[in-house]
Amino acid sequence: MTARPTRMTVTALGGIPEIRPGDDLAAVIADAAAANGEVLADGDIVVVAQKIVSKAEGRYADLARVTPSARAIELAEKTEKDPRLVELILSEAAEVLRFRPGVLIVAHRHGVVLANAGIDTSNLDPARGETEVLLLPEDPDRSAAGLREALARRAGASLGVVVNDSLGRAWRNGTVGAAIGASGVAALLDQRGQPDRTGRALRITEIGLADEIAAAASAVMGQADEGRPVVVVRGLAHASGDGAASDLVRAKELDLFR
Amino acid sequence: MTARPTRMTVTALGGIPEIRPGDDLAAVIADAAAANGEVLADGDIVVVAQKIVSKAEGRYADLARVTPSARAIELAEKTEKDPRLVELILSEAAEVLRFRPGVLIVAHRHGVVLANAGIDTSNLDPARGETEVLLLPEDPDRSAAGLREALARRAGASLGVVVNDSLGRAWRNGTVGAAIGASGVAALLDQRGQPDRTGRALRITEIGLADEIAAAASAVMGQADEGRPVVVVRGLAHASGDGAASDLVRAKELDLFR
Repeated sequence: MTARPTRMTVTALGGIPEIRPGDDLAAVIADAAAANGEVLADGDIVVVAQKIVSKAEGRYADLARVTPSARAIELAEKTEKDPRLVELILSEAAEVLRFRPGVLIVAHRHGVVLANAGIDTSNLDPARGETEVLLLPEDPDRSAAGLREALARRAGASLGVVVNDSLGRAWRNGTVGAAIGASGVAALLDQRGQPDRTGRALRITEIGLADEIAAAASAVMGQADEGRPVVVVRGLAHASGDGAASDLVRAKELDLFR
Repeated sequence: MTARPTRMTVTALGGIPEIRPGDDLAAVIADAAAANGEVLADGDIVVVAQKIVSKAEGRYADLARVTPSARAIELAEKTEKDPRLVELILSEAAEVLRFRPGVLIVAHRHGVVLANAGIDTSNLDPARGETEVLLLPEDPDRSAAGLREALARRAGASLGVVVNDSLGRAWRNGTVGAAIGASGVAALLDQRGQPDRTGRALRITEIGLADEIAAAASAVMGQADEGRPVVVVRGLAHASGDGAASDLVRAKELDLFR
């Protein structure tokens, strides 16, 4: 009996400071890794919370400056939400999927299906005012690619980057970390053609590996006041690749649940 | 700047043998842990692939002995599946949600929404015959609880157990590990009342933590011929609790995507 364990470590860096628009995230992460005694190496995947990517990119919007459309006002009544927030959600969305009081689920124009177009009203800097909210990055795959390049240059290593967010699901309670941006990662791992242990063809052909990585990172990031928005995932030899989070978005015409 | 990392390790045990009906899974896992140099300790969460739980419980069914109903024959035509398999799926299901050629998505009578009621035709023992398939455990939360008790007794430690399976999702490509059984785990972590960093109330109130743990484990289990169906997750201080995977099933009347 061969008894060699296979190990992945999922390490949340401590001491990431409050991120502000224009901050160099790669520099912040490289500094934090050093301060935590972590040496970024080939094959490491750095998972970064959407929130700090959005903050670095200055993706704030001020509800006080938003004038809601008639459609937003109507939908705000039905969802019991601020009409200005609903206006922003609609401006970020490609399609409204479902709503009811307290809930507004849309397909973001990036493709990801999520509540409130991912617009965040928590964990913001109070100094920025009570009406500021935070949108998703303009293009999370592009954010991941830029961050990967800058981090790889600093580390002198080949890295992957995942931008994660906590998403609700159909059919299941609770949010789970998922990849909304990725670079240098086999985001959707194709296992077609690989035999199972008995030599039969595998039935499951595609693994949402970047989502599994994002979920693993979420488990150690915490959601509340811990503030651990950067996680280093190490030991997943099969996770390197040239995928993007957009690979994980099911094409609308193939989606049975819209 | 406090720079103390927080680390979760996710360790797949090597050398788990082929599991057969009646095998004592706790004994197999305890032996494998020892052979891998892993000492199970308080707070560890042992993630076990559904497949070996089902095998140990003898949840095989033989398609050759199934007589499909008229409804199964009709649905088999529409889904291009074996009518006998469809009959088994229907017998496991509480509700058919969606179908099309190649796809049959149901709510299992346990509550979990998944393709083919989780019935597995891959990675089975060819000696058992080409028409044998494997059903989900009779009651995966009960399986997890029994395994937890037996493992904890052997280890002399307080453990959690998650039974995971690879599930498809609405809106997203690829399967992701999810918890279909759990015991001793804060499966659905309630964060209501916890402030964010700015003192505002948190918007996201419930985390599907057992699903995040299941996904992390899936990333190292592999799906193909690697055969690493047991994973030890260590370092998640907030993951102990008295939840069950049934906590993760959204009540039908609250589900907007059925």
